[in-house]
Amino acid sequence: MGNLRRVPVGIVGASGYGGLQLVRLLLEHPEVELVYLGEDSIVGKSLATAYPHLANVVKLPIEAIEPEIIASRCQVVFLSLSNGHACQIAPILLEQGCQVIDLSADYRFRNLATYTSWYGKERSDHDTAATAVYGLPELYRDRIADAQLVGCPGAYPTASLIALLPLFKQGLIVPETAIIDAKSGTSSGGREPKTHLLLAEADNSLAAYSVTRHRHTPEIEQICSELAGHEVTVQFTPHLVPMVRGTLATVYATLRDPGLVGDDIITIYTAFYRNSPWIKVCDSGIYPNTKWASGTNICYIGIEVDPRTRRVIVMSAIDNLIKGQAGQAIQCLNLMMGWDETLGLPKVGFYP
Amino acid sequence: MGNLRRVPVGIVGASGYGGLQLVRLLLEHPEVELVYLGEDSIVGKSLATAYPHLANVVKLPIEAIEPEIIASRCQVVFLSLSNGHACQIAPILLEQGCQVIDLSADYRFRNLATYTSWYGKERSDHDTAATAVYGLPELYRDRIADAQLVGCPGAYPTASLIALLPLFKQGLIVPETAIIDAKSGTSSGGREPKTHLLLAEADNSLAAYSVTRHRHTPEIEQICSELAGHEVTVQFTPHLVPMVRGTLATVYATLRDPGLVGDDIITIYTAFYRNSPWIKVCDSGIYPNTKWASGTNICYIGIEVDPRTRRVIVMSAIDNLIKGQAGQAIQCLNLMMGWDETLGLPKVGFYP
Amino acid sequence: MGNLRRVPVGIVGASGYGGLQLVRLLLEHPEVELVYLGEDSIVGKSLATAYPHLANVVKLPIEAIEPEIIASRCQVVFLSLSNGHACQIAPILLEQGCQVIDLSADYRFRNLATYTSWYGKERSDHDTAATAVYGLPELYRDRIADAQLVGCPGAYPTASLIALLPLFKQGLIVPETAIIDAKSGTSSGGREPKTHLLLAEADNSLAAYSVTRHRHTPEIEQICSELAGHEVTVQFTPHLVPMVRGTLATVYATLRDPGLVGDDIITIYTAFYRNSPWIKVCDSGIYPNTKWASGTNICYIGIEVDPRTRRVIVMSAIDNLIKGQAGQAIQCLNLMMGWDETLGLPKVGFYP
Amino acid sequence: MGNLRRVPVGIVGASGYGGLQLVRLLLEHPEVELVYLGEDSIVGKSLATAYPHLANVVKLPIEAIEPEIIASRCQVVFLSLSNGHACQIAPILLEQGCQVIDLSADYRFRNLATYTSWYGKERSDHDTAATAVYGLPELYRDRIADAQLVGCPGAYPTASLIALLPLFKQGLIVPETAIIDAKSGTSSGGREPKTHLLLAEADNSLAAYSVTRHRHTPEIEQICSELAGHEVTVQFTPHLVPMVRGTLATVYATLRDPGLVGDDIITIYTAFYRNSPWIKVCDSGIYPNTKWASGTNICYIGIEVDPRTRRVIVMSAIDNLIKGQAGQAIQCLNLMMGWDETLGLPKVGFYP
Repeated sequence: MGNLRRVPVGIVGASGYGGLQLVRLLLEHPEVELVYLGEDSIVGKSLATAYPHLANVVKLPIEAIEPEIIASRCQVVFLSLSNGHACQIAPILLEQGCQVIDLSADYRFRNLATYTSWYGKERSDHDTAATAVYGLPELYRDRIADAQLVGCPGAYPTASLIALLPLFKQGLIVPETAIIDAKSGTSSGGREPKTHLLLAEADNSLAAYSVTRHRHTPEIEQICSELAGHEVTVQFTPHLVPMVRGTLATVYATLRDPGLVGDDIITIYTAFYRNSPWIKVCDSGIYPNTKWASGTNICYIGIEVDPRTRRVIVMSAIDNLIKGQAGQAIQCLNLMMGWDETLGLPKVGFYP
Repeated sequence: MGNLRRVPVGIVGASGYGGLQLVRLLLEHPEVELVYLGEDSIVGKSLATAYPHLANVVKLPIEAIEPEIIASRCQVVFLSLSNGHACQIAPILLEQGCQVIDLSADYRFRNLATYTSWYGKERSDHDTAATAVYGLPELYRDRIADAQLVGCPGAYPTASLIALLPLFKQGLIVPETAIIDAKSGTSSGGREPKTHLLLAEADNSLAAYSVTRHRHTPEIEQICSELAGHEVTVQFTPHLVPMVRGTLATVYATLRDPGLVGDDIITIYTAFYRNSPWIKVCDSGIYPNTKWASGTNICYIGIEVDPRTRRVIVMSAIDNLIKGQAGQAIQCLNLMMGWDETLGLPKVGFYP
Repeated sequence: MGNLRRVPVGIVGASGYGGLQLVRLLLEHPEVELVYLGEDSIVGKSLATAYPHLANVVKLPIEAIEPEIIASRCQVVFLSLSNGHACQIAPILLEQGCQVIDLSADYRFRNLATYTSWYGKERSDHDTAATAVYGLPELYRDRIADAQLVGCPGAYPTASLIALLPLFKQGLIVPETAIIDAKSGTSSGGREPKTHLLLAEADNSLAAYSVTRHRHTPEIEQICSELAGHEVTVQFTPHLVPMVRGTLATVYATLRDPGLVGDDIITIYTAFYRNSPWIKVCDSGIYPNTKWASGTNICYIGIEVDPRTRRVIVMSAIDNLIKGQAGQAIQCLNLMMGWDETLGLPKVGFYP
Repeated sequence: MGNLRRVPVGIVGASGYGGLQLVRLLLEHPEVELVYLGEDSIVGKSLATAYPHLANVVKLPIEAIEPEIIASRCQVVFLSLSNGHACQIAPILLEQGCQVIDLSADYRFRNLATYTSWYGKERSDHDTAATAVYGLPELYRDRIADAQLVGCPGAYPTASLIALLPLFKQGLIVPETAIIDAKSGTSSGGREPKTHLLLAEADNSLAAYSVTRHRHTPEIEQICSELAGHEVTVQFTPHLVPMVRGTLATVYATLRDPGLVGDDIITIYTAFYRNSPWIKVCDSGIYPNTKWASGTNICYIGIEVDPRTRRVIVMSAIDNLIKGQAGQAIQCLNLMMGWDETLGLPKVGFYP
């Protein structure tokens, strides 16, 4: 089109599920113009090579990933690569004056030693990493607005943290009692073909994985520790569920104050998220369903208190590829640009 | 809101899957204002009673179905009721000056004797029915633009006819050889609970139903006969597929001219649908997938010619609840109002 | 056939999913003869009325539910009715000398006050209930062998208790820390059509339900309390998963002894279940998948210890309709008759 | 074990879905002893490496594929390899006196030129191939009984041919009108990870593939031509359906005799398959469902005649991995050994 007032943006890693959502959302975003799509494996081809339904929809060609060229054309660059690649590109882009929104794990950690310990990769970009803001708008809205580099959390930390933030921020729970039993659809595993993600294997099948050692654990703990003011350890157990999209976190924690009832907690959450347009706290007795969030950037929260056990149980449901990935990145973009946080993002899906 | 320039529209039958899609689409349509939602079973309640994810999204209350009151408030009324109900309401609405878009079978037949024979219900609204236009924009774009009453086809006739139209219109096939092997997801069966639509029954399950006697057969034949210029009988076999959304029609017919090859037919279809923005004819060797169409108003068409058998095989894929139902109704609305045919309708879904 | 040495058995409530599995399993059991099928709604018809694939397989007609007549023909009667009906039939059958295996909640409680409190129904059969044995063979093998009346646990208590038994029996955990995050396929909801169990609703959908108040909670607590020697309260949260069969329980508890590692717990479980042919304790690092258990009576157990949190995490996977229902009932039958516990029950399913 | 009277059998290619079903079925077959499992990629390991649920169930180690050694230990060898490999092993096994049952395409063709033309591979084992019998017991029961080498058809030809046999054998249809619209679950695509078979891609997705050119076409035509007494060309269109197991063929053909009604055809099929214990012809108005056949060796047949179009429509449903693969191979084994055709094969599955 060439609307000169639109912000030129690019996507590095356009052919994975995260990149695909970004393409879909950015094409319809009223204030940006998508000017670059990069993916080394299909340079010179169309995105329709990987996704035939996009023939004649996405007209941009796929280009090689050359940071200087990208920087010369884009004001904002989304990095949607596997872990360990963003940290090689982001410093160059930033130096050339781009703003960078990374969807991988590379810029989520304050302490790169934690990253190296859980991801097994040494890092040399400590200065760059020190400037990164954790891209969870419901917690760091102001810092994101001022950031040049944002490291967005994925679906598990997003669902888990939105469920936990008010509890930790208000000191409502005994920190070490927090348990996150998380469940996610198979699109979280990406588009690379793997046996356990085949329909024949994953359908009518349910199991936990990476028990006690999933890489999203330190990220969740980093934020909880900051809120609690001391080191917090949480239990995080992910499960693979036979569905395409959606992440549900069922969070358990023991309340400090035995007098709190469910409605009290609902009131606290409603207040906490009053200025968060993407958080919907359900009425008492209503528990969120991943299907409600499908195709939207919404996080639904359900709350119950068990007077028999003194525990609060918080359930949060998101679309793992939108609020859990690409939608959140665009929510961060909106904040960084000073636009309304909801701009260009879907509010209602096509149920059922 | 009260944008005075927006066209006030209402939905009668808002709580079924068809009504729900209409709500979703009309809320985001830039030229209409949704001012009425009717459903006798939940009068006075919110649509969130039936669909909790719509809490705070749909603020209109559900009202009783009183045609005079509806007519006083709405310029256009969508009827999304089970068969046999629209014909009791539409005449009153029309008399009061409304335009009516019906999603049931009531106004799809030129000859009401055909309706009575297949639907088992006598009709007295012959004058009204005579004014109805069959709501398939790809065929009757001009008539729809001038209509007061449109009877929209459902998913099976839509997918079947879009696959068949060029063949019949151009006289390319031996008419009586046309066979439609159609497949649809379980949302086509509606939201009323029925045993065979339970996940436990329908999942990992596939079967034909209503073989040789499905009610959509006469509708398809009515259109094909008009195009052929003589009575045409087609074979139509629907199947229930273990998925939520989507309809695929696989159409077989014998070519009159044995010299035609696949690329010829693709060229003919591309020309035939040149001015149909919602039809995407796939390149040679690409066959449409229902998932591509999910969440959009697009119909994807794939074409193959078998030189061994002299048959053409045409596959068409749509979202049964959008192009096969609510989206098509809004496409008709756009034409009736003189708006662009694509206004307010989704072009790209959230794959996967 | 009339093998005179076979034990004549009957099923009251043959057309639900539980009854159907019983029919399937008992037809192939080498020591019983199925002589009676009762279901009031389809008296005089064939089971193929409800399940067409059983035409010519199940030749017994469906009969009315008349306890005296049933007792005159059956040595053992399986009751597969909704809660509150077995307690009206079982006393009569027992009086006539039958052995009774009930699949409902009616005979699972030592204290009928607990039943009345959670199920909302007064009971007058206290003497009968006092003789009932809880039908979990892995815990009460000897008592079941001597029982006239067995109340079998369903899928959730079975999966939960098999995961918890060694922990409570050996005093390994802090009792009040036990949390069961359970997940089950939609066949657990039965065959009565309900909106939320429709494929269109339940597919690609995940949510918790009955949080803090599911009726299986008191049953689990009854057994845990007995093992602990004092009243124990557990947290139990069920989730509905988009799959047909299978129940997975993910159990969390804090270990008393911080020195125990995963292999220690695996050793303890292996010893505990040494004489339980249906329990398979997985090797370290292997977590059970519901699909493995599908079509079998096996319960797979996976174990992990988190040294960071001092918690043990135990996962147990079963087929909700076999080990969680009909298969367990037949396992109890085998014990009551002095047969091998594995007789007539499937050991390997048809993966995938 | 070492029951000396049992027939020693082996499986070459034990880790694919076909091999896995063979393992499952042969372990429970009363007259055979499984003595060899071969798979070059996991030599020396256990089958539980690939399928953890089989730990302690399958105790045989996986061995290398050395034909002479296999022949020295096995009386019958099942070959479950990808196309083009059986033809290198079978001649050696036969020469050593083994009987061979091949599940690939290698021995399904009378005319190896047809094989070479569709599979793109030259063959030198013409003498061996000339002795092979097509392993469809319902057609070639007697020849299979005398065979040393059987080439078993897969799911598509099996479902298609069982639906077509009586029509061609009795000359009831106009041969060139036969159209097979076939649908199959994703396990037909095997266990090798491929993008289009991922749950995220294949779920809620439906499309045709290999239209006009699927490799199973010539096999079906070979048999139909033999029955018709002249060259017959059929239309065969496969579709990938979002389910794990099951194949449904919907067959259309024009009847020669316009006076035949549905009940006539049902009578003819019932007579034709009177001695075929695995074929169940449904009553009028009942259409087969793939789920009915799941976990069994049964083929369900439904029949309808459309007096309006003079077509017969035959639907056949099987479990693609049992009657469409491993079960059929064992049915052939039973015939080759002179055992009852049903021996060791499952008759009722675990619906739902």
